[in-house]
Amino acid sequence: MPTPVNRQIVLRRRPVGMPKPGDFDLVESPLPAPDDGEILTRTLYLSLDPYMRGRISGVKSYAQGVELGQVIVGATVGEVLESKHPGFAKGDIVQGYSGWQSHAVAAGGAVRKLDPRQAPVSTALGVLGMPGMTAYVGLLDIGQPKPGETVVVSAASGAVGSAVGQIAKIKGARAVGIAGSQDKCDYVVGELGFDACVNYKKGDLLAELKVACPGGIDVYFENVGGDVLRAVMQLLNMNARIPLCGLISEYNATDTVPGPNLRPLLFNRVLVKGFIVSDHLARLPDFLKDCGGWLREGRLKHREDVVIGLEKAPEAFIGLLQGRNFGKLLVRVGEDPTK
Amino acid sequence: MPTPVNRQIVLRRRPVGMPKPGDFDLVESPLPAPDDGEILTRTLYLSLDPYMRGRISGVKSYAQGVELGQVIVGATVGEVLESKHPGFAKGDIVQGYSGWQSHAVAAGGAVRKLDPRQAPVSTALGVLGMPGMTAYVGLLDIGQPKPGETVVVSAASGAVGSAVGQIAKIKGARAVGIAGSQDKCDYVVGELGFDACVNYKKGDLLAELKVACPGGIDVYFENVGGDVLRAVMQLLNMNARIPLCGLISEYNATDTVPGPNLRPLLFNRVLVKGFIVSDHLARLPDFLKDCGGWLREGRLKHREDVVIGLEKAPEAFIGLLQGRNFGKLLVRVGEDPTK
Repeated sequence: MPTPVNRQIVLRRRPVGMPKPGDFDLVESPLPAPDDGEILTRTLYLSLDPYMRGRISGVKSYAQGVELGQVIVGATVGEVLESKHPGFAKGDIVQGYSGWQSHAVAAGGAVRKLDPRQAPVSTALGVLGMPGMTAYVGLLDIGQPKPGETVVVSAASGAVGSAVGQIAKIKGARAVGIAGSQDKCDYVVGELGFDACVNYKKGDLLAELKVACPGGIDVYFENVGGDVLRAVMQLLNMNARIPLCGLISEYNATDTVPGPNLRPLLFNRVLVKGFIVSDHLARLPDFLKDCGGWLREGRLKHREDVVIGLEKAPEAFIGLLQGRNFGKLLVRVGEDPTK
Repeated sequence: MPTPVNRQIVLRRRPVGMPKPGDFDLVESPLPAPDDGEILTRTLYLSLDPYMRGRISGVKSYAQGVELGQVIVGATVGEVLESKHPGFAKGDIVQGYSGWQSHAVAAGGAVRKLDPRQAPVSTALGVLGMPGMTAYVGLLDIGQPKPGETVVVSAASGAVGSAVGQIAKIKGARAVGIAGSQDKCDYVVGELGFDACVNYKKGDLLAELKVACPGGIDVYFENVGGDVLRAVMQLLNMNARIPLCGLISEYNATDTVPGPNLRPLLFNRVLVKGFIVSDHLARLPDFLKDCGGWLREGRLKHREDVVIGLEKAPEAFIGLLQGRNFGKLLVRVGEDPTK
């Protein structure tokens, strides 16, 4: 049996504009050993998310950035190989933040044990993880949709957007998605039950959005910025709310791009609130109870786009920034023993 | 004695860009007569305010627009000449919305009786009127400044801005103004007690604002938009709040001007809320009690820029949009019997 090594993807240079595969390096290092209170895990799944673009950019963001030569950050699901923490045993499955690597040591307090009987463990990175909770707190706590109102969400087939629209429906609102292909739109309406979905790459976005939202827009869950936001701004209703979750269309911009004209916010008394899910951890129990229940009842559906092999992470991440994934993007780093 | 006539300024054509005197007409008509429940008033003061630009533009705004040939809207203080309402007597002074004219009939329920012993009646159009209440509800209900935080307000020597900074100081915050001349900045700091004031027409706004706000910006009370907003966006602190009250720098734009890049709102979890004072009338008693008290105690100062004669209103209004007034801009339409 060969000595196991830790395979890691590190930041080789800061990307300018859209990241390139050469911005990343795959390196090997000895397996780390856990100290008292720590566990050693083998990564099963790595979550790829748009926020990572900010962490590797070197500009001010909402969190600590990744330095050159460091392992890229990311949420993971792993299997405990060795435990020096009383709360964990070999074979436990945990959700943590090991980043883009095959193995990692973590403090026991920094991970959460998963119950594979409740839901597939990979959902802890998607519909029952950070993306799902982002949808939950952004929509319910900031967007506050009322029955009959119209909720629009961009990146609608993605991990966050697909949950936003389904939770809006559960709460009695109309859900309208915006996505980047006819396939994605068909999925959002046909599989997820949104009332309508507009393909922003086809024709006149504003005109199609008007047709999809005859009563205007009450809540816009913002993931993308740019032209989509400019179109939405023209259809906002009085007292509309905009949970500002992401601006993915701008993350690779090398210059500061202008935003939309703000007069519609003034005239319509609109609320805009930037938010980060990690500020809302107090809502984790509510989120797990509600979304876990809806998932088991079949009212909250999700889709995973799984790439096999850690070495594929850079390419998959670039595809994510270009909208090439379809569903929650995961890298399967090691075999999942619960499947 | 000549038969009194009603002198009125009406909208002759819709302004394109900055209004011109020729967009307005001065006309005369017979004095109106009050019906049961109404009063006839003689206008003493007419308030000129930036929102009027939107009302005469013909584009969607937050209120009914002015049609061609109609009297321009506006808040007024008037003296009752004749009353057919049991709540008012000849000689009473009332605050109403007679618009740009020398006389008007109003329903008794649409005006508010003033007590000249409490404060000069003209203050009902400024520090104790709509501008003061705009400052009060926008700053306290949306901005929610905490002691030690930094509050920045644009158009700081104006009717709204001067109250914002002084109320911020009363609440224990630092107040930093932005204004368009050294005279205005000197007034804001020397007379009103702001901690600092930056002249946006001189030098590098962002650099000077940084010096004036070494701890960043927690609340930005927005009156102007444009370059000032772009500079402020770069200095926002985590969880900053932006009560969005006006965008005066854009009101004459003939094209839709782009807004600021929104990434600072996302990264800093910023709240932006458009608001209109008329949505907050439930706060009128609190406002009158607090601001009336602070005014009588000398803690809330104000300055009026009074133009004599109704016929001067168009020119004064154009000056307001160019920032030429200094203090709350009023037109004295008729002699004030309480002075």
